[in-house]
Amino acid sequence: MNLHAMKLVTIVCESYAREPVTQLLRIVGANGWTLFPVEGEGSHGKRFADIQESANIQIEVIVPPEVSAQLLEKLSDELFAPYAMIAFESEVRVLRPGKF
Amino acid sequence: MNLHAMKLVTIVCESYAREPVTQLLRIVGANGWTLFPVEGEGSHGKRFADIQESANIQIEVIVPPEVSAQLLEKLSDELFAPYAMIAFESEVRVLRPGKF
Amino acid sequence: MNLHAMKLVTIVCESYAREPVTQLLRIVGANGWTLFPVEGEGSHGKRFADIQESANIQIEVIVPPEVSAQLLEKLSDELFAPYAMIAFESEVRVLRPGKF
Repeated sequence: MNLHAMKLVTIVCESYAREPVTQLLRIVGANGWTLFPVEGEGSHGKRFADIQESANIQIEVIVPPEVSAQLLEKLSDELFAPYAMIAFESEVRVLRPGKF
Repeated sequence: MNLHAMKLVTIVCESYAREPVTQLLRIVGANGWTLFPVEGEGSHGKRFADIQESANIQIEVIVPPEVSAQLLEKLSDELFAPYAMIAFESEVRVLRPGKF
Repeated sequence: MNLHAMKLVTIVCESYAREPVTQLLRIVGANGWTLFPVEGEGSHGKRFADIQESANIQIEVIVPPEVSAQLLEKLSDELFAPYAMIAFESEVRVLRPGKF
């Protein structure tokens, strides 16, 4: 069994940001991700209403380390200003790396 | 691009525990979290019904390392006895640390 | 406060694979897990419809390191061929290890 060191990048954002984020994932070559509807409470103490228009989403994607750096930089440069969004990376060890 | 080493604390609990947990998050100074409805199967093999009253939730929050230790200690001391709950921390590297 | 080093194993798969995966979790001795309904976009660019039959799920389980290796190997050997599925592990530090 071969496990491969990869990065899990997690993005929490307004659902409005879904299309720009997933477009960016395609641009950097991420081949798959999962998307969760979440409730969130952010840095201003605002509770997001449980409705489609203002819902939050969490997107998780596994990428090689160099893609993680590129993805986080593009998120920071292009999407952090217009959208409520946070992003972080963590270490994972993956079966089936060819899927990513 | 600056990434900052932080802790991701994950709490899985009965939805009954939502208010005490989020109150504790505010007390330790956590400024934002995400909340997922989840299905769970716990250590007694009990399958939680898919209804609001007995549903499980997963709460994820990013905090500095010292806050993680404080949060886990308070969870253990104050909320583990009355509620079905588990908690764990992991390492993450975060953009926009000022948000946390 | 004692934190114990454990593995978080995450499995993303078609909801069809739910029973074989949870059966495997029981076989390796995992005592609890959480299950999230997720949307996914996989390596073939296919967007999974938001319907029960073809929905994706994400299952997360915390296990000791030796169980993680056994679980990942069995997933790879037994379930990767018949099902659309990815799996990865990461490091976590857990309160209440007796729960797992």
